[in-house]
Amino acid sequence: MTSQSLSLHAIPDIPLIKPNDNLEKIILSALFASGIKLENNDIIAIAQKIISKAEGRLVDLATVKPSEKAIKLAQEINKDPRQIELVLSEAKEIIAVKPGVIIVEHHSGVILANAGIDHSNVEGSKEIVCLLPKDANQSAKRLKKEIEALCKKQIGIIITDSIGRPWRKGTTGVAIGSAGVETIRDLRGDKDMFGRELMVSETANADSLASAACLLMGEGDDATPVVLIRGVTTVMSDQDTRQLLRPKDEDMFR
Amino acid sequence: MTSQSLSLHAIPDIPLIKPNDNLEKIILSALFASGIKLENNDIIAIAQKIISKAEGRLVDLATVKPSEKAIKLAQEINKDPRQIELVLSEAKEIIAVKPGVIIVEHHSGVILANAGIDHSNVEGSKEIVCLLPKDANQSAKRLKKEIEALCKKQIGIIITDSIGRPWRKGTTGVAIGSAGVETIRDLRGDKDMFGRELMVSETANADSLASAACLLMGEGDDATPVVLIRGVTTVMSDQDTRQLLRPKDEDMFR
Repeated sequence: MTSQSLSLHAIPDIPLIKPNDNLEKIILSALFASGIKLENNDIIAIAQKIISKAEGRLVDLATVKPSEKAIKLAQEINKDPRQIELVLSEAKEIIAVKPGVIIVEHHSGVILANAGIDHSNVEGSKEIVCLLPKDANQSAKRLKKEIEALCKKQIGIIITDSIGRPWRKGTTGVAIGSAGVETIRDLRGDKDMFGRELMVSETANADSLASAACLLMGEGDDATPVVLIRGVTTVMSDQDTRQLLRPKDEDMFR
Repeated sequence: MTSQSLSLHAIPDIPLIKPNDNLEKIILSALFASGIKLENNDIIAIAQKIISKAEGRLVDLATVKPSEKAIKLAQEINKDPRQIELVLSEAKEIIAVKPGVIIVEHHSGVILANAGIDHSNVEGSKEIVCLLPKDANQSAKRLKKEIEALCKKQIGIIITDSIGRPWRKGTTGVAIGSAGVETIRDLRGDKDMFGRELMVSETANADSLASAACLLMGEGDDATPVVLIRGVTTVMSDQDTRQLLRPKDEDMFR
């Protein structure tokens, strides 16, 4: 980032998203209606929930038959065994377990509570829950391509989720998928103002952008799942959010 | 946050800060020179490093006599025992130790590597290192008061630091001190778009704002340690960054 300024706008009037909706057209229509014209290097941050809905990642708990492992774990932490079954099926590894919550490594490599499964802002029965996109980087790549074809600008896409953290209270946004965005900046070899090598070696730019975008998305009935970010000068990267995942053998806390 | 838009501007031409510098006047002069007029509810994000420098939190390692504990630990992780002595003196508790790095709970309650001590962007001998402010919330409170008295607007202050995280690579900004800012928003009782109670109950707004601000501050020779944030509608909170600290007994990862 060499930007001097950054602006973020929540795009109003995004309708409720249903399976098989054409997200790229919906987003472009809402942008058009709000008078915003996409520019090169704009980044569109999109809440995971609407990507998942468009991709049909909704499951009716009534259709889930929990395994013995799920039933046992659910008893232990006082949760619905069908939900635990889904968490386990979405997980590569269990990281930690406590009453009401299970922290796992999702198949995508993201570590988060309940494998990112919840039912907030999902319409219909309370039994219908929403899973993370199957491959959010792939979703971002596809959206980038489709939107660029429609608007003739080079843009970046970040798919965001709000997750909790060890040590600090409250959720912040992270990037669980992206395309065209410099997700992590490697500063090794860079110098400080006095020409000395830096001690901090990498900044998680895509997570910081996701954090800022999530501030405008809200968590409740705000209904602004799309945020336009303008001012980032480094769109066009080949990176995606896989570079943000800390390999297990470099992680002090696994 | 009920904002629809958020803008961040790095304030150019902040000079090098020295002990006893008058930060409030320096910041206001730089704002004035850049043509930005403060408005009510603006938030000024300030890098920890210049707060620490102004408050004289610089230590010449040549003056530090390491304890036996520090010497032993330094050998274990291959670090300068004088630096480890400072880390231990700034720490309430050691959280984790590995070659080259020691994660501690700082006296302020923030958990971070090397107690936040480093020598990047500190002029003079490489032996001079910079500690975190003694009480960053107090620093923020004082700056808020002084700047408000000078500019006759109600503003918020966030003091930022860039810190690493378990599980995810790269640093992001966090708020280590603040005044007048809603640091954490409690959503318990709030409803989603379909009137159901939210599962995510708290958002760490001040950390998200700090993350975004740090994108514009850079880590190297950018020399833009002050960022103006406009668009947050909830300045005027009594909270500070202590509300962001997860109590030990609620923390699954301590």
